[in-house]
Amino acid sequence: MQTPWEYRFANRTRQMGSSVIRELLKLTEQPDIISFGGGLPAPEVFPVKKFQEACNTVLKTEAALALQYSTTEGYRPLREMIARRTARYAVSVTPENILITSGSQQALDFIGRIFINQGDHIVVENPTYLGALQAWNAYGAQYIPVPSDEDGMITEELEKALRIGPKFIYILPNFQNPSGVTLSLERRRQLVELADRYGVPIVEDDPYGQLRFEGDHLPSVVSLDSKYRGDNGCYTGNVIYLSTFSKILAPGIRLAWVIAPEQVIRKLVQAKQAADLNTAAFNQLVAYEVGRDGFLDEHAKVIRATYKERRDVMLEMMEEMFPPGVHWTRPQGGMFLWGVLPETMDAAEVLKIAIERKVAFVPGESFHPNGGGKNTMRLNFSYSNPETIRAGITRLGTVLKELVAQAHDR
Amino acid sequence: MQTPWEYRFANRTRQMGSSVIRELLKLTEQPDIISFGGGLPAPEVFPVKKFQEACNTVLKTEAALALQYSTTEGYRPLREMIARRTARYAVSVTPENILITSGSQQALDFIGRIFINQGDHIVVENPTYLGALQAWNAYGAQYIPVPSDEDGMITEELEKALRIGPKFIYILPNFQNPSGVTLSLERRRQLVELADRYGVPIVEDDPYGQLRFEGDHLPSVVSLDSKYRGDNGCYTGNVIYLSTFSKILAPGIRLAWVIAPEQVIRKLVQAKQAADLNTAAFNQLVAYEVGRDGFLDEHAKVIRATYKERRDVMLEMMEEMFPPGVHWTRPQGGMFLWGVLPETMDAAEVLKIAIERKVAFVPGESFHPNGGGKNTMRLNFSYSNPETIRAGITRLGTVLKELVAQAHDR
Repeated sequence: MQTPWEYRFANRTRQMGSSVIRELLKLTEQPDIISFGGGLPAPEVFPVKKFQEACNTVLKTEAALALQYSTTEGYRPLREMIARRTARYAVSVTPENILITSGSQQALDFIGRIFINQGDHIVVENPTYLGALQAWNAYGAQYIPVPSDEDGMITEELEKALRIGPKFIYILPNFQNPSGVTLSLERRRQLVELADRYGVPIVEDDPYGQLRFEGDHLPSVVSLDSKYRGDNGCYTGNVIYLSTFSKILAPGIRLAWVIAPEQVIRKLVQAKQAADLNTAAFNQLVAYEVGRDGFLDEHAKVIRATYKERRDVMLEMMEEMFPPGVHWTRPQGGMFLWGVLPETMDAAEVLKIAIERKVAFVPGESFHPNGGGKNTMRLNFSYSNPETIRAGITRLGTVLKELVAQAHDR
Repeated sequence: MQTPWEYRFANRTRQMGSSVIRELLKLTEQPDIISFGGGLPAPEVFPVKKFQEACNTVLKTEAALALQYSTTEGYRPLREMIARRTARYAVSVTPENILITSGSQQALDFIGRIFINQGDHIVVENPTYLGALQAWNAYGAQYIPVPSDEDGMITEELEKALRIGPKFIYILPNFQNPSGVTLSLERRRQLVELADRYGVPIVEDDPYGQLRFEGDHLPSVVSLDSKYRGDNGCYTGNVIYLSTFSKILAPGIRLAWVIAPEQVIRKLVQAKQAADLNTAAFNQLVAYEVGRDGFLDEHAKVIRATYKERRDVMLEMMEEMFPPGVHWTRPQGGMFLWGVLPETMDAAEVLKIAIERKVAFVPGESFHPNGGGKNTMRLNFSYSNPETIRAGITRLGTVLKELVAQAHDR
């Protein structure tokens, strides 16, 4: 029999659930395990001194504002700063097009809250970001996964999906989580064109856009959709764009933002009012103080250099240590790469053995909303330093060599 | 015709809505208006120096932890600190009984998320806290308002409500928002007994418990329910208890907590994982650093003295300036008092005129989930300094005298 509490929980809680993966990953928190499983930025590049200065300045000059309740939309100078940065990428917006959220996960939740009715269909890349699935499962979303390759979502397959009548398309165009791949310019144009033709909005999730180590910057999807302008010249198009300070400053302040037509922002503001009133004013003032003088651009260079080195070391070591039959992506930026094992292998089984050998990753199956991908794995290269990456990939390569050899023997 | 976005919004957004009150209150943000409308703590009592020291210490000694993603449950030393403080009030809990949230509003939202199915009934005091209604409206809650008087919810009326089969009872026992009244000890006992008999959980919202200016501390509802213990001696009862750092430190750091049986906390953690991953680690480490050495108790004395003075001034001025026929509560703590106008008067109409005379309050109707209370008003006494309170109540008294006289003439 269920406990009384279990009888009381709402129906939607059955759609929430804790993932098996998360339980497995708890094992990886032991200090002697090298984990490529998380999605953590490198702590070495947190701009600690800049934060210290900003905290002192804010508490010295703006304490009454910083420690008080604030507006649900977010601190206006911070939204103005984001609007200015956005304008550099050919998207003209005002602060009224911007909502500050407590991390991008909150933006994903609010998007689910204001758009998704039980049973609504969402077009996603396959694989796609697990956090989005977790946010939207609670609202009863169904998924239409569109396959992707080295150039991102295969837009030739998108039209079929759009004819099913989805609520929106969710896409991470830059250095996707989990696969690390980037949507090509041609496909970005096709995506915008198809979405416009079918009248289906796009949710563009871009946490890693500033973290390109090599190759040319590609225009954001929202910028390609910018033919839609209101009377004030501002964006009224088809795309809801998300980005975050978590990857260019620090995730510990939980600050992200949404850019969208005003009508969507107003509805998101209502959602936020009910959900947590406002994002911490203190954090917003500190982030503004850190970012106001151009520091973000300077700091992004440091992060890119650090992550490029780590990616290079990981790729080099995989080349050396991984057995034939294992393939992987070569991301031009971001924090993750994606491994594909021989089809008969199960990455969850590999993880169990890997944990015994003190190395961990995330099996890729849970990034596939409708199943599949049992032989895939996500590896994070941003968190561990080069030496640790060398040791960890050596351990993982040894496990993989043994298992691939066993698979062949069978 | 609706715009395309309006067609796309989920059904539940129709239950969200922006309140007329909020729109009216926007007018009160003009600097020459004295507003008793908000629910803001006094900025004069923000412990700025303590925050400065704490930020410096945290960034000096724990930056890698403070600026990183953290666990969904919350920073363990902070939860341990809360558990120790809770034990002082005869409730034995472990950190596993505690979830840190981004303000109590988020706790209210999560409670709605894990308990409320469309159409479920919630027992509330009448009037009750507007933020709870906003949070739960989005989940399609219906309300059973139980009348209250100077001693809080009239528990004699509660049994009828419980026989309707509500999902839970929501109550603010101390210095209630909006009415300022406190639930008597006898009624607390009756509430716990009745809830236990009918198997209905209680959500006890206690943001102001530490802000008692006079009279004896009354035991919390959760402590009266503490006959339920698990094998480890910890709380397994019928009450979900909420409190917050917003009123004893500062709302600008958005930190609150839930105390509940482990099974409920685990479900709330799943909700938080999907909603925003975790509460800002930086804020949690800073709050721990501020509170770890007993500062909270010392600081609460300062807040109590400040708010007592302001309440006294407001009561004194009301006595002097308000016309016969207007009545109000005399809270023993907290931040709000409650005015009742002659029955024929409409507080929303009074507000319109009051705003012209540069003073504002919140009309009480919106705190009544099923309507009524048109002749009631909420006044905040924590935010304005004594001089401003004198000026504001003088203005409001003048308006009320005129309107009461007009009402008599009619």
